[in-house]
Amino acid sequence: MLDNEYYSQEIHGPYEIFEAGDFELEEGGKIRGLKLAYRAIGNLNSRKDNAILMTTWFSGTSKILEQVYVGEGRALDPNKYFIVIVNQIGSGLSSSPHNTPPPFDGPNFPRVRIADDVRAQHKLITEKFGIERLELVVGGSMGAQQTWEWAVRYPEMVKRAAPIAGTAKNTPHDFLFGEVLCDAIRSDPAWNGGWYREPHAVREGLRRHARTWLLLGLSTEFFKRELYRTLGFCSLEDFVVGFVEGYFYPMDPNNLLCQAWKWQRGDVSRITGGDLKQALGRIKAKMFVMPIDEDMFFPVRDCAAEQEMVAQSELRVIKSLWGHFALFGVEDEYREQVDRNLKELLATRVP
Amino acid sequence: MLDNEYYSQEIHGPYEIFEAGDFELEEGGKIRGLKLAYRAIGNLNSRKDNAILMTTWFSGTSKILEQVYVGEGRALDPNKYFIVIVNQIGSGLSSSPHNTPPPFDGPNFPRVRIADDVRAQHKLITEKFGIERLELVVGGSMGAQQTWEWAVRYPEMVKRAAPIAGTAKNTPHDFLFGEVLCDAIRSDPAWNGGWYREPHAVREGLRRHARTWLLLGLSTEFFKRELYRTLGFCSLEDFVVGFVEGYFYPMDPNNLLCQAWKWQRGDVSRITGGDLKQALGRIKAKMFVMPIDEDMFFPVRDCAAEQEMVAQSELRVIKSLWGHFALFGVEDEYREQVDRNLKELLATRVP
Repeated sequence: MLDNEYYSQEIHGPYEIFEAGDFELEEGGKIRGLKLAYRAIGNLNSRKDNAILMTTWFSGTSKILEQVYVGEGRALDPNKYFIVIVNQIGSGLSSSPHNTPPPFDGPNFPRVRIADDVRAQHKLITEKFGIERLELVVGGSMGAQQTWEWAVRYPEMVKRAAPIAGTAKNTPHDFLFGEVLCDAIRSDPAWNGGWYREPHAVREGLRRHARTWLLLGLSTEFFKRELYRTLGFCSLEDFVVGFVEGYFYPMDPNNLLCQAWKWQRGDVSRITGGDLKQALGRIKAKMFVMPIDEDMFFPVRDCAAEQEMVAQSELRVIKSLWGHFALFGVEDEYREQVDRNLKELLATRVP
Repeated sequence: MLDNEYYSQEIHGPYEIFEAGDFELEEGGKIRGLKLAYRAIGNLNSRKDNAILMTTWFSGTSKILEQVYVGEGRALDPNKYFIVIVNQIGSGLSSSPHNTPPPFDGPNFPRVRIADDVRAQHKLITEKFGIERLELVVGGSMGAQQTWEWAVRYPEMVKRAAPIAGTAKNTPHDFLFGEVLCDAIRSDPAWNGGWYREPHAVREGLRRHARTWLLLGLSTEFFKRELYRTLGFCSLEDFVVGFVEGYFYPMDPNNLLCQAWKWQRGDVSRITGGDLKQALGRIKAKMFVMPIDEDMFFPVRDCAAEQEMVAQSELRVIKSLWGHFALFGVEDEYREQVDRNLKELLATRVP
């Protein structure tokens, strides 16, 4: 276990911990005393029919999701809804390589799949809160992968679903992206097979990892128009170091690799022996599939192809020159588009 | 100097050497006894008005250009035209880090710019062959950068120009791509500041460099449809190792970095103090600007924006799911599209 001040209530709180007990994993092995860190906002009504589940993206936590997507007057309004944001396994707040006791710490932390997260979240939602149906499941990127998995795995429980900038089955190109990102970390000599001596030893690997994100994380036009200036960055290098590298430096490399492994292998069709059409045919939720038009690794066409296999679904393309990183929600226009769609989705009557 | 059997007549020949003499560079410094390796095909007629110049891309040589683009009945028909393909500085055939004697060898090889290449090629074309006007300048990727530079720098000499999948001024996103590619090589401990002990020592760096190419070199759809199977590769990993890694392993890392530095900084507007519109306004050639629709790092919109600034120009988008790597010409459809456009361009009367 490596103490890392980054994963703390001070920085990512407030959040609470759900003790999910010993939890067996799809790939074999188990997490002893699985902890899920979640943030609950608003009040669950007596009929327990106002609950919304949000799922987190790679490296993100409940904090940024609350800040960007939740608020009075927003689609996800805590005055109306009981909103539960669950930090994924490996996120650094829930059970993760860096906070697990030996000998299952660091690189020994077992392989986790998207479906493991979803099964653990199901335990939280049903056992802790006694919720039988969710008004909405929504998440971006890996959060979208979890959203898809929820809709496929627990079709009776999900009334509405909105995967933003993410696919039900990961693509080979996206898989390669994950490989290159992980290689950047693992090739740092300080990585030492995952047994780095202190939390921030793998600095150079994290630097390269951060820069690799820039190849697909934003749009080519973002750089050309120097949109980083809207955030106060005064040059390309200023943005690269100040925004992207600065974002990843405090994080634990094993945590990132745990999440990346999951992301690379996201695939709802594992439940139907690899038949994606059959898997997506299980969905009963009303779905808005929301790719971002300039997303370079979850391109619209991949999301559209999946959306077409879902009965009650619509494709709602979000426009943003921020590409995939639009998820960070720095643009008013992005948040407005998401809210407009989610409000419409939430207003849709679902039997 | 590091002997490297890859850069040889056996593998990349036949080619000839033009001795360009001591050659001063834009960034300062000079190359002593600059050698340009070129391949000339066909015969220069007595009026010397049937010459075509081809320029090479990053890591490519005259060999593949001849194989893919030149032939009887093709647009570039050696029965009609005298076709000169010049290997760029740093390519490994012309003067390059690996074949330059100490102390300017390896990482001490001076910085070279696209415009240096074009000035050296101009010397070859005018001094060696006495050619005053070129029927066509054509090249892909970095070859397109050289094509643009030719049209801007020597407007009277270039009757027609066809930059394929490349820009007149490199974009910031493309610059970052170059950074990540170079970082992959430089972060290998065997790199040793560029003073690796034997030509193939930087194996791991080249491996990561090759894989980084996959993020932008082909289209997302290429991988999804497993188009590599058309080349006989039986899995994604089989293709990655067999095609992309295998392609780069024999190359000299300093040579690649020399070329990448040039590519990252390609900018025809250096001649007009940074005014791109003014630079492109100098062009007198009839131009077909030919981006590839699925190119992820020379996207159509960047090429279109430049094309619009050229008086006698048309945008001719090439369609290919191979993305940027379509340049390798493995698809019949790609070669047919290029030929159709080049034939039309060559048939256009230019005063």
